[in-house]
Parts: sequence; C-alpha cells; structure tokens
Amino acid sequence: MNYREESLKKHAQWRGKIEVSCRVPVGDKDELGVAYTPGVAEPCLAIHDDINKSFELTRRWNTVPVITDGTAILGLGDIGPEAGMPVMEGKCALFKAYGDVDAFPICIGSKDTEEIIRTIKLISGSFGGINLEDISAPRCFEIERRLLEELDIPVFHDDQHGTAIVVSAALLNALKLAGKQIGEVQVVVNGAGAAGIAISRFLLDLGVKHLTVCDRAGIIDDCDEFNLPQRELAALINTGHRRGTLADALKGADVFIGVSVGNIVSKDMVRSMADKPIIFPMANPVSEISYQDAVEAGAFIVGTGSSANPNQINNVLVFPGLFRGALDARAKTVNREMLLAAARGLQSCVSDSELSREYILPYAWDKKAHEAVAKAVMQAAIDTGISKIY
Amino acid sequence: MNYREESLKKHAQWRGKIEVSCRVPVGDKDELGVAYTPGVAEPCLAIHDDINKSFELTRRWNTVPVITDGTAILGLGDIGPEAGMPVMEGKCALFKAYGDVDAFPICIGSKDTEEIIRTIKLISGSFGGINLEDISAPRCFEIERRLLEELDIPVFHDDQHGTAIVVSAALLNALKLAGKQIGEVQVVVNGAGAAGIAISRFLLDLGVKHLTVCDRAGIIDDCDEFNLPQRELAALINTGHRRGTLADALKGADVFIGVSVGNIVSKDMVRSMADKPIIFPMANPVSEISYQDAVEAGAFIVGTGSSANPNQINNVLVFPGLFRGALDARAKTVNREMLLAAARGLQSCVSDSELSREYILPYAWDKKAHEAVAKAVMQAAIDTGISKIY
Repeated sequence: MNYREESLKKHAQWRGKIEVSCRVPVGDKDELGVAYTPGVAEPCLAIHDDINKSFELTRRWNTVPVITDGTAILGLGDIGPEAGMPVMEGKCALFKAYGDVDAFPICIGSKDTEEIIRTIKLISGSFGGINLEDISAPRCFEIERRLLEELDIPVFHDDQHGTAIVVSAALLNALKLAGKQIGEVQVVVNGAGAAGIAISRFLLDLGVKHLTVCDRAGIIDDCDEFNLPQRELAALINTGHRRGTLADALKGADVFIGVSVGNIVSKDMVRSMADKPIIFPMANPVSEISYQDAVEAGAFIVGTGSSANPNQINNVLVFPGLFRGALDARAKTVNREMLLAAARGLQSCVSDSELSREYILPYAWDKKAHEAVAKAVMQAAIDTGISKIY
Repeated sequence: MNYREESLKKHAQWRGKIEVSCRVPVGDKDELGVAYTPGVAEPCLAIHDDINKSFELTRRWNTVPVITDGTAILGLGDIGPEAGMPVMEGKCALFKAYGDVDAFPICIGSKDTEEIIRTIKLISGSFGGINLEDISAPRCFEIERRLLEELDIPVFHDDQHGTAIVVSAALLNALKLAGKQIGEVQVVVNGAGAAGIAISRFLLDLGVKHLTVCDRAGIIDDCDEFNLPQRELAALINTGHRRGTLADALKGADVFIGVSVGNIVSKDMVRSMADKPIIFPMANPVSEISYQDAVEAGAFIVGTGSSANPNQINNVLVFPGLFRGALDARAKTVNREMLLAAARGLQSCVSDSELSREYILPYAWDKKAHEAVAKAVMQAAIDTGISKIY
C-alpha cells in the first residue's frame, strides 16, 4: 500500500481522527439541572474545598494533552505547530484506542523554552498528566526536567523515553535470542538528539557497560563540538576521549541502534560488526540501512521503525500503557522505576515460545501488550511511593 | 428534585461529562500506517505548504476550547481554575449535544490579563474558534477585544454576548406580547459586570432608546466611582448625569433585567413600574426577586436563569448554535451582525401561535432552536464577507 497517498486521501475524508463526545444525558430540564446549572455549583464548590477532588468529579483523572511546538515532527523537522497536528491527533487516537486515555492535541506557537514551560504550567490544572511530543533537542530536556520538578502530575517526553523503552525491550529480547549478556555487548547508538540521548542513558540503567554514541561529527566526546547534554553523556561513557567515525565505532560492535538519518550504514559496516549483530535502524521515513540490506549483510536480528518489516520498534507500544498506569496510580510524577518497569513489562509480553528473530516485540495493536505496560507502570508507581491514592 | 445534591452524586459516578473518542480504525498494520506513521507525514506536509489545510485535514475546523481563568464561575465568583472545571466540562457536553461542536475545557492558572491573552494566542493554532468563559470584568473586555484583533478565528465571550443575545431574544418576544415598541420602553439593567455591560450595549444596537444601568453604587454615571467600561457606557446613556438607587430607576420602567445578586428587588419595586412590566431577574443561584413574588406583584412576564420556572433565559440557547454557524462559515472573527442575527434567529423560533407569557423562548434542549441560531449566524458571516470559504 502507498501509505502516504492513501493517508492524504483518508485525512481529507476523516476531517479529524478524534472528536469529543458527551457522556451524560442533557435532554430535558432535570438532566440539564444536574449536569449543568444550577446543580453543577456543588461539584465546583467541592473541588474548591479540596483540589484533589478535581480528579474525581471531572475528567481530569483520564485526560492528557499531547503537546508540541512543532519543531521536531516525525522525520520532518521544524514544520510548525499547525502542520504537526495530524501527528498529534494520531497519537490522541492511539491513546484512546490502545490505552483508553482521553488525549487532546495542543500546539504551542512558540519556540522559547521558558514560554513553552510557562504555557504548559498555566494549563496543567485541566489535565491528569502531560505528554510532550516532537519537541527538538536540547530544549526538550530542559522543558521536561522543569515540568517534572514544578508540576505534581506525570510528565513524559515520548520521543525520549517512549523510544528508549521500546528499544530496550526489543534489545533485551534480541540479546536473549543471540545468547549475549547485556553487560558484555558493545552497543553503538547513532544520533545524539532527544531519542539517542534518552536511549543511551536508559541502556546504562539497564546494565550496558560498553556504549559508543555518534552524531554527525562522529563519536561524541566531552568537547566544544557537542552540546551540553551530549557532553554530559560523553563524560560518562567516553572517558578515554575516543574519536572516530560511525564506521570506526561499528567495528566489532554487537548492537547498532540508529535514530538519525537514512542510508548511512553500508553492508560492509554491518559485516565489520561482531558475530550475530543486532541492527535497529529506526530513522523515519528512510532507515539508516534497509531491512533487506541488513539481512543480506548478515544481521542476526533487524528491527526498524516501519510497519512494513518484521520487528517494528515504535513507541506506540509504550505511551498508551505508560499513561494508563501512571493515571490509574494517580502518580505525582514519572520516575526511572516506572520507565524501567514499562520496558520489562513490554519485553515480557513475548513469551519464550513466541520469541523469534522476526518477532521480538508484540504488535502495536496487541491489547495485552498495552495492558502489561500499564500494569507494570502502575505497580512501580505504587512501590516507589509516588501514588497519591495507593 | 434537589439538583445540587443529585449533581454531586452524579458527578462522582460520571467522573467526567465528556471524553475523547477515536474516529479512525487502527487495528492492524495498514490502518496504523495510514492514520499514523509513515502515512501521516503527507497531511503534515500539506498543512506546512498551506496552513488553511489544517481546517481540512485535522479536527481543527470543529474544535473550540472553553477557556476560563476561574475568576467568575457561575454565581460562585473567583473559585480558581480547577474548581471551575465542572462548569467548563458541562459547557463542552452541551456544545457537543446541541451543536455537534468538539469543545474542550481549558483552565488557565493566571489572573494576569496579558498572560491570559498570550497563553490563548500560543495555543490558538489547535482550534477553529475560542470560547471565553466565566472570566471576570473588566479584564474580560480587554481579553476579548485583543484576541478578536490579533487572531483570525472566531472569539466569543459567552458571559457577555451569549447572555446579551438570549436576553434580547426574550425581550423582543415579551414586548410583542405586551404590545410595546422597543424604541419607546424604559429599560433598567441591574449589574454592570461582563453580562450587564454587554446586554446594555446590545439593547442599544437593537433600538432601545431609554436605558438606565445600575450597579452596587446605584445608577452608573461617568464619574470616578465606576470603572472604565461602566463610564464609557454611562457616557452614552446617562448624559443628564442622573443618580439614584435601583428603586429610583425602576419607578415607571417597563423592563427590569437583573444580572446581579439575589433578593434585591421587592414586590413594591415591581408595583412601582409601568403597566405590564417585564421582569427578568437572572442572578444565580438566587434571583433578584423570586418568580412567584414577581408574578404576585403584577409582573406581566417573568423570565429567570433557572429551569425550575417557565421562561428560562440561559445562554445555553446561544453558544452551541453560534459556534456551529461561525465554524461552518469558517468565519475570520465574530462581528456585531452575527450576534444580532443569533438574537433574531432565536427569537423567531417561537412562532406567534406558540408565543405566550409562559413561553417566550424555546427550551434549551430544542434542536431546532440551535439549528436556527447556527443558520442565522452562518448567513450573517457570509453576508458580511468574513467567511474564509464562502
């Protein structure tokens, strides 16, 4: 199927992938008096007395905005907030279909970090959590950090942590098949933006000991060529100040994780890797190396961002369940334990008997995968004492 | 029915009066590829090329936020943004049920005029129009004026114009029954906040020639005791600098319109009015004079804000149809002609054979009333050349 052509046609027919529905009867005098004035004064006053009641007497408990500034939309870059809306609406549709979360798209017409933070804070009282989306690095790190610090509801930048979680779940299962240990493999991440940095930090938390991260200028190091989040990461993983190209980094490596641009990994580069190489070229819309080329060059397992190949590694497997769990726990924040639980929960959805080189992750539309993520996240929130109700 | 008690119970059961629903299939690989990645890149790029396409390829064309700062919620005053949410959600439910508009509640945690304006402007790219709600006077005037000036979508402060429109429709029909001419009657408006000022200006546009407006300090005049919007209005209607109490103003008056506080009009004050007095005491939750007392004191027609009595005068008869019409016309703004058309459209829903002293307005749940308002507003937008598509 020509997805792009079909998509434009369908979007013009749909005129919107979500809508707001009315859940209450308002068909006569009494119904109106209960749902609206004069009766509605009572729940208002109850919330005025105890603001926590806003999670019980309105839809706040289940409502999350998908917020972007339009600066890093898909693989399209800075196309502006309005042009990002089809993606945001798509996420909202998936939030509902897979997680039963009421998500609503909001585009902010500013690229100023402080202004974006302030705007989100000002409207946060309407929401049970905040999903940040397609905001470019490095500003996304500051925006997320500050909101996590200053709000008492879950805040989650999907491009960072959703990607990190789904990649990690895929990697854990791939390593199981390859018979390799996470503490022993050589991992190369290419692309040191929001996703690349978050994946790298997540892999360190999961026990990866040998990690090389590359960006356009090659292997990242703690020097002026790189931005602050890149330098901070390099200080952790590149203490020997190794420099070089992506091709240099890949020699002898066990794992390649690409969140960069299309067609920059050759078959020879794959052949230079260790035995049973695991290749996740996830750039959109064109991957770092095609699925076919990677297989032909001897990759043991290949996973891409596209649904056209086996092993689609897409954060749609994460965000619906992650927010379902965080909202159900009424978590005060999103902590590391919840993210790690999401990765473990997702990984465990593929049983040993199902696990194969072409099936390392559940399908995006698999309800039980989303339920597993939700359950794991909710439990982690409760266990770490950040649930407001359990 | 005890609306307040029942309402609290129902709100706790409902846990939200609206929700977001998913309008598209996302149950397999191909469906996901069309609604989401990779297909969704195409509508994004189409909007990037022509921003008007955001009204065709996303839900923007039908989406309106119900935005408050929580400073003037119902008759409850400044109870804060979260506590205002049950009202905002109620409005959203009615927007959908009566106008098929996708409305979404947003509370802004600021009382600063400039910050509220800036926040709304920053998120306006997600919406087809802006409904301002329960924002206190005089700041609401400036917020609305600036947004109308600076945005190219319809902006409507419901508490001002929704109220003005529904009161005017009620008054036109009441005058018809009383056999009085709009240019000849003496009208007294009590309460010079958002609603009172807007009603007054609207009545002038409709042809009222003899208008007295009172606030807490009595008849408003162009002096320091009153705020700027009040002084500007007084300069138009009180050129003789008449002062006095509400009781003074009511002597010999034909019409009383109350948007103030409960129990401030006595039976004697009604008896002091002209023949066949028309009394609209609309304060919530307690009206300026009770329906029963007004009738006993000889009122010819009584209309209140409550659904418990005949002649409920509530702006729920206006906002769903007004936005339906403005959105369908894809109006650039909301102009005076659209507001006047809404009032005429609403008035005309009650035919001469239906019209009676206890039925001067259609019921709030009457679909044909909302359709009549929508049709009139859309036509006025087209006729005045502010439709972007007709």
